[in-house]
Amino acid sequence: MLSKNQIKLITSLQQKKYRDLHQLFVAEGNKLISDLIAAKTKVEYLIYTKEWNTKNSIGNQVKINNRIETDAIQMKKISSLKSPSSVLAVFKMPTREVNEKNIQNSLSILLDDVQDPGNLGTIIRIADWFGIKHIFCSCNTVDLYNPKVIQATMGAISSVNVSYVDLKTMILKYKKPDFPIYGTFLEGEIIYKCELQKKGFIIMGNEGKGVSESIQKLVSNKLYIPDFPCGEAASESLNVSVATSIICSEFRRQEF
Amino acid sequence: MLSKNQIKLITSLQQKKYRDLHQLFVAEGNKLISDLIAAKTKVEYLIYTKEWNTKNSIGNQVKINNRIETDAIQMKKISSLKSPSSVLAVFKMPTREVNEKNIQNSLSILLDDVQDPGNLGTIIRIADWFGIKHIFCSCNTVDLYNPKVIQATMGAISSVNVSYVDLKTMILKYKKPDFPIYGTFLEGEIIYKCELQKKGFIIMGNEGKGVSESIQKLVSNKLYIPDFPCGEAASESLNVSVATSIICSEFRRQEF
Repeated sequence: MLSKNQIKLITSLQQKKYRDLHQLFVAEGNKLISDLIAAKTKVEYLIYTKEWNTKNSIGNQVKINNRIETDAIQMKKISSLKSPSSVLAVFKMPTREVNEKNIQNSLSILLDDVQDPGNLGTIIRIADWFGIKHIFCSCNTVDLYNPKVIQATMGAISSVNVSYVDLKTMILKYKKPDFPIYGTFLEGEIIYKCELQKKGFIIMGNEGKGVSESIQKLVSNKLYIPDFPCGEAASESLNVSVATSIICSEFRRQEF
Repeated sequence: MLSKNQIKLITSLQQKKYRDLHQLFVAEGNKLISDLIAAKTKVEYLIYTKEWNTKNSIGNQVKINNRIETDAIQMKKISSLKSPSSVLAVFKMPTREVNEKNIQNSLSILLDDVQDPGNLGTIIRIADWFGIKHIFCSCNTVDLYNPKVIQATMGAISSVNVSYVDLKTMILKYKKPDFPIYGTFLEGEIIYKCELQKKGFIIMGNEGKGVSESIQKLVSNKLYIPDFPCGEAASESLNVSVATSIICSEFRRQEF
């Protein structure tokens, strides 16, 4: 069973300040935990119900110091999910290495104050699918280790490097005539008709406000995902993770 | 202020059986409510805080019998959101007319047991964006009037016709040599290389299980959204709403 202090520690990790303090984060569910362990993320605690333990062998192949069997009542206490899983793990935050060469020669995604954890998690999964290795988030973007982000990544978090930076500094560092800065705007060029490059930054904005003004000015290539037939959609825009997926798909289609 | 019975009625609408019984559903927030009213959805109650009422004029141009001013405490009671909005409306479920000719001559989306309300809401918004007028859901798909679905549609619900049907019967009714049934499968053809038709059904499956076996057999055109570089993604699949957006975008791109 878990001690009072362990329960206190684990529930505190639902808050960013304690995750940062302890450099720990929580993941729940078989698949997600297996993926994170397979990606060599270090486990601090592996916590499970008796029933789970008789059927599963997650992490048996790696050394985990703290394997703790507990019951459904304690699981409910430490879980951030409505229906707690029968397995939960506390991981050490990995140190993330930025690959300069990869950034210069390929596509990266920049997120300007994306707020919804589901959106960030989904965008990480999209980046993984389309072979985008780096996501740079503005400092006001939702925290990567927010439990809802972690759950929405479905394990893709282990293969995409997510860092928090000053976007303006980042863009000014890399922007060159042959390194385009892409963004989506109502007045942009129809994306299907653009010749898209194999490298550059794709900037996606906040759910309500879009890309902030100071960042807009740095965009070199304005794109637009047209509705169909043009101008007839009732909605004014697409959800930011949906727009990201369409953009990434179109970049990759042009390479096929 | 709201009476006890009104509070009881409104909170009961968080459950499908009471929504079906009363033929009513709830929407929250300025934008969503304005869009639904603009689309001529009939309002049963419009409920708001005093503060909201001094700044807003939703629905002033239409006749609404029950306009009720309340306080933040009652709003919290009737809201299904963590942070209740300052305006909530109860709408009559519209009668939805299926347009046979539109189905025969254009694209429709079929959902086979999609469970997550956020996914259904997002798919409705995608359908609206890409001019797809009909979505047919299997009877086990999450309920259209679930508050989380309504919130995720961002108003697009008023321009897309969503009905619950037996998918197999539906497919057998329309399937013809020149009316393709599309589905996504790992062994499908790379979507970017397929010549896609302007009409047909696009079937999207359950979040965990994909398209059910009996429906799979009826698919005439198997598609695949490839990861990039092929086979290197850590994730096994894309989220169902993300996959829907990529597919719809590719269908429309080919028409541009």
